[in-house]
Amino acid sequence: MAGHMDLAEYLFRRIHQIGVRAVHGVPGDYNLTALDYIEPAGLSWVGNANELNAGYAADGYARIRGVSALVTAFGVGELSAINAVAGAYAERAAVIHIVGAVPTHVQEQGLCMHHSLGDGNFRVFADMAANITVAQANLTDAETAAAEIDRCLRECVLQSRPVYIELPTNMVKARVSAAGLASPIDRSLLVPANDEAVEDSKADLILGKIYASKQPFIIVDGFTSRYGIRDEADELVRVTGFPTSTTPFGKGIVNETYPNFHGIYAGMAGKQIYMPWARGCDVVIRLGPLPSDVNTFGFSTTPDPTITITFERDSVEIEGTQYRGLHVKSLLRKILTRLDKTKLPKYDPYPDLGDLRAQLKALPPTGKDDTIDQATFWQRISNFLQPGDIVLTETGTPSVGGRDIVLPPNTTLINSSIWLSIGYMLGACAGVALAQREMVAEGSQPQGRTVLFEGDGSLQMTVQVFSDIIRNRLDVVVFVINNDGYTIERWIHGMKAGYNDIPPWRYLDAPTFFAAPEHDPAYPVFTKRAETWGELNDVLANPDLQRGKGLNIVEVIMARDDAPEVLKRLVESTSRRNSGVSERPKAITHEEKVMKVAG
Amino acid sequence: MAGHMDLAEYLFRRIHQIGVRAVHGVPGDYNLTALDYIEPAGLSWVGNANELNAGYAADGYARIRGVSALVTAFGVGELSAINAVAGAYAERAAVIHIVGAVPTHVQEQGLCMHHSLGDGNFRVFADMAANITVAQANLTDAETAAAEIDRCLRECVLQSRPVYIELPTNMVKARVSAAGLASPIDRSLLVPANDEAVEDSKADLILGKIYASKQPFIIVDGFTSRYGIRDEADELVRVTGFPTSTTPFGKGIVNETYPNFHGIYAGMAGKQIYMPWARGCDVVIRLGPLPSDVNTFGFSTTPDPTITITFERDSVEIEGTQYRGLHVKSLLRKILTRLDKTKLPKYDPYPDLGDLRAQLKALPPTGKDDTIDQATFWQRISNFLQPGDIVLTETGTPSVGGRDIVLPPNTTLINSSIWLSIGYMLGACAGVALAQREMVAEGSQPQGRTVLFEGDGSLQMTVQVFSDIIRNRLDVVVFVINNDGYTIERWIHGMKAGYNDIPPWRYLDAPTFFAAPEHDPAYPVFTKRAETWGELNDVLANPDLQRGKGLNIVEVIMARDDAPEVLKRLVESTSRRNSGVSERPKAITHEEKVMKVAG
Repeated sequence: MAGHMDLAEYLFRRIHQIGVRAVHGVPGDYNLTALDYIEPAGLSWVGNANELNAGYAADGYARIRGVSALVTAFGVGELSAINAVAGAYAERAAVIHIVGAVPTHVQEQGLCMHHSLGDGNFRVFADMAANITVAQANLTDAETAAAEIDRCLRECVLQSRPVYIELPTNMVKARVSAAGLASPIDRSLLVPANDEAVEDSKADLILGKIYASKQPFIIVDGFTSRYGIRDEADELVRVTGFPTSTTPFGKGIVNETYPNFHGIYAGMAGKQIYMPWARGCDVVIRLGPLPSDVNTFGFSTTPDPTITITFERDSVEIEGTQYRGLHVKSLLRKILTRLDKTKLPKYDPYPDLGDLRAQLKALPPTGKDDTIDQATFWQRISNFLQPGDIVLTETGTPSVGGRDIVLPPNTTLINSSIWLSIGYMLGACAGVALAQREMVAEGSQPQGRTVLFEGDGSLQMTVQVFSDIIRNRLDVVVFVINNDGYTIERWIHGMKAGYNDIPPWRYLDAPTFFAAPEHDPAYPVFTKRAETWGELNDVLANPDLQRGKGLNIVEVIMARDDAPEVLKRLVESTSRRNSGVSERPKAITHEEKVMKVAG
Repeated sequence: MAGHMDLAEYLFRRIHQIGVRAVHGVPGDYNLTALDYIEPAGLSWVGNANELNAGYAADGYARIRGVSALVTAFGVGELSAINAVAGAYAERAAVIHIVGAVPTHVQEQGLCMHHSLGDGNFRVFADMAANITVAQANLTDAETAAAEIDRCLRECVLQSRPVYIELPTNMVKARVSAAGLASPIDRSLLVPANDEAVEDSKADLILGKIYASKQPFIIVDGFTSRYGIRDEADELVRVTGFPTSTTPFGKGIVNETYPNFHGIYAGMAGKQIYMPWARGCDVVIRLGPLPSDVNTFGFSTTPDPTITITFERDSVEIEGTQYRGLHVKSLLRKILTRLDKTKLPKYDPYPDLGDLRAQLKALPPTGKDDTIDQATFWQRISNFLQPGDIVLTETGTPSVGGRDIVLPPNTTLINSSIWLSIGYMLGACAGVALAQREMVAEGSQPQGRTVLFEGDGSLQMTVQVFSDIIRNRLDVVVFVINNDGYTIERWIHGMKAGYNDIPPWRYLDAPTFFAAPEHDPAYPVFTKRAETWGELNDVLANPDLQRGKGLNIVEVIMARDDAPEVLKRLVESTSRRNSGVSERPKAITHEEKVMKVAG
């Protein structure tokens, strides 16, 4: 390894070391020379049609691969991507955002440069980014640049949140020490060890609560994936056999075929039979929570802290007392190692309505000419899914309906549970498909498909993603739920309002418009429209679609005013809150604090 | 007029009063109830496919109509639009950005709400917006809301820059005093009167300089339109007969058929014949300057302050001394009123290469099978343009090449000269076409077409705009310059680099994909592709295209490495500056400060 190398070479080789294999982004005149270093570092260039879509795809890639990189130009490029970066911050995707910036000497002179506001202030956009990234570096000094890069990459992975690195054009070829490359940033070594004695005492304290419980409940939430404790969460559920649910955001983390897995506990928006049981719990084990309104059904599933053990990334909260400086992975492993199965309590069983798979099988058969309904589509589509699939459900009826999907083992589900930026999921789908392809090839992901359920209004936001998919020959199955507008918004307000309408596009013409290859066996294209259950069942039985190779688009027609039941209940509470007329949300929690699991 | 009305009614009626007739934006759950007030206020709802495109369209609409309105949702929506709002700030488009925000009581409780970062901080995005807007209001108080709205609208129009208004959902129906509506915000009355004595003395001082000049030069720049002094600028040019040029940003403001109009002075990037003449000027009259690198050809056309009279919005700078508090419109009118034509000097004529129209006519005829070249396309296309047209040239080869267009009288040209966000111009085109249609109907704009020259890479950024165009039945003529990638970037760096490639789309399928009406005489669709001059000339002669009704797309094929000469020269200097290897830009100015017009 040479003693010194160009700054951009160091940057992209470091990014490769940390596990990234493809760089998302859009070229611009302040980043072009840096892009020359991407392929020599062993990375591929994705080349997205626009920056927002690049940011969304980088987020999706990071959710599967653990980390991703995004390159944009100063000002125009970075601001186009900022919504995606903010989403990555809110939902904890580790995106390294590199901004090709104005040369340092030009910044120092305060010149009126293109892509700036013209006022000589070149810090404006970095200041904005500081609100939505966990570390920032401006690589203006060759002496410190390598260390600054390392610091940002470490924070990105450790906190699983975006970081912001400015690379002024004139610094691309600045010579920096290559010494750091000899010590790869090993993601697994980044986590500091817990104090052994503290960890032991807390593990025993928690085990004591578990052994003493009479009605325990495990709630697995989505940050469990981000904190790298998917396997530990799954093991805890399997070994204890405790009744387990997930939040919407946590769906897919735990094997849904376990007999003690009971789907999503939906609080006040769910079936009423579960509420009395949830109120009776005496220990709730809660992993990686995201306490947003959407993820807690209007704060109605947030458990009472006095009976809850909450595992955060670097702390654990036991019955209302928070203990910091305990990394969750090590603590959970300790608990699992020490857990004595013979001491596990007999507990009150979950008031099950039958196994999820049994419920699915019990659905009445569909009539050939029946319209496709939100009430059963999401359960029924479960039969299309296969182990290894990565399933994405776009914000709207797909994310809400998708909670009813019964996932096969070894599947992953991605949805948005706080940021909820429609259009995100199509972009994320491209990043996911790319990460999946890379990881299957490396043997670090099982064979499987990328399957997206996308709304029509959402698709229109980011439709250029189809071009990115085709350009990179990504294998995707996209179900476009065409219900003629923003149906989730119709339910919130304005069922028949013109502003909730969207123009009808010919979605199945996307491969033609975006010039997908025709009759290329290496990249097949499949498009079908289904208006009835009969048509849909035929489409789903198609072996090409089942294989999921190439670009597959299925347009599923649903009624414009049809919505999953839980959505109808949920938006009622949201619109009450938004109007400010009726009760305040805290009051819900307060009124029901007699419940052990609040709400 | 009722004593009180709903806050949202006041807001949108005020926006109507100030001259807006259509509201751009995207619905979202925090703004839905507010949208109910748009149509009752006499405004139409545009309903864009995404927020960035909505922001771009609002910017374009404002450049024609003087002011526009944009509605997005909190967080996700506003951040998707922020690049457009920043561009409106940089290039001075008066966009009123209304954000439907989280209810005030929910904000006060710091709840973990969707579309927030989840940390209880609801000010993050407003803080970002404060950097790129000239006034902000958070309508949390019914007592002050009307005054806050009025303040923002006034600043928006006065400064011709965006403002940011947050409307929390629960405040939509808050009752506010309607008294303000009785005093419409008259845009023409907003400008404070100048101190008469000061204005008189400065007018005389300036007239003295004009009368004494031996080699005067007028440079009309783009903010001239924003400061509402188009007519005064045109009159000054016509009455004095002084040699006149525009900057790239100022093109189209002055009637290009005047004998003393000499096109764009391009400094070091232009024809060498002009440099010695420019160096010999003793008075430069400069109107509404935007001193960006791109607009000044690498700072090479910025005139020497010691011989320059610069008209800014609220000040005038005479030979290096700035006089503030003088509004430009009143001052210019005073100068024009007092100007004594008999005292105008005889001056050294501009070293003209012949009248621009004569140059155009002198072009050799095109061969039927000749490829379409950047070197002559832009001049030749002038013959397609008609009085009343509004012409838009996208950043890239169109904006650079478009400087060679010879405009008929009463046309307007829109380009970007500092923000340069590719994809902007297609969005802006939709806003322009809407504003033009409204104003032609009102009699405040001449009959004419909206004609856009769009790059292929740019088009891919914001292609959904075609859907917005179709939805609103806008009449546009779009020339898609298909040169197979980011040609301007190829010239800057990476002529053959893969990152400057883009996937080839079937651009002419856009009307089909976005479901434009078929065979609807009220909204015709015209698409043609031209690979040779012969084909292009046939297309241009088509009466349907010439009429410009409905959606018209002409795909013009050019070589991927072809570029206007001036672009080649310009990027050479840009890449020198970016690399930081060669001379610094200030040095250029310094070295050449012997020139009277620097550079």
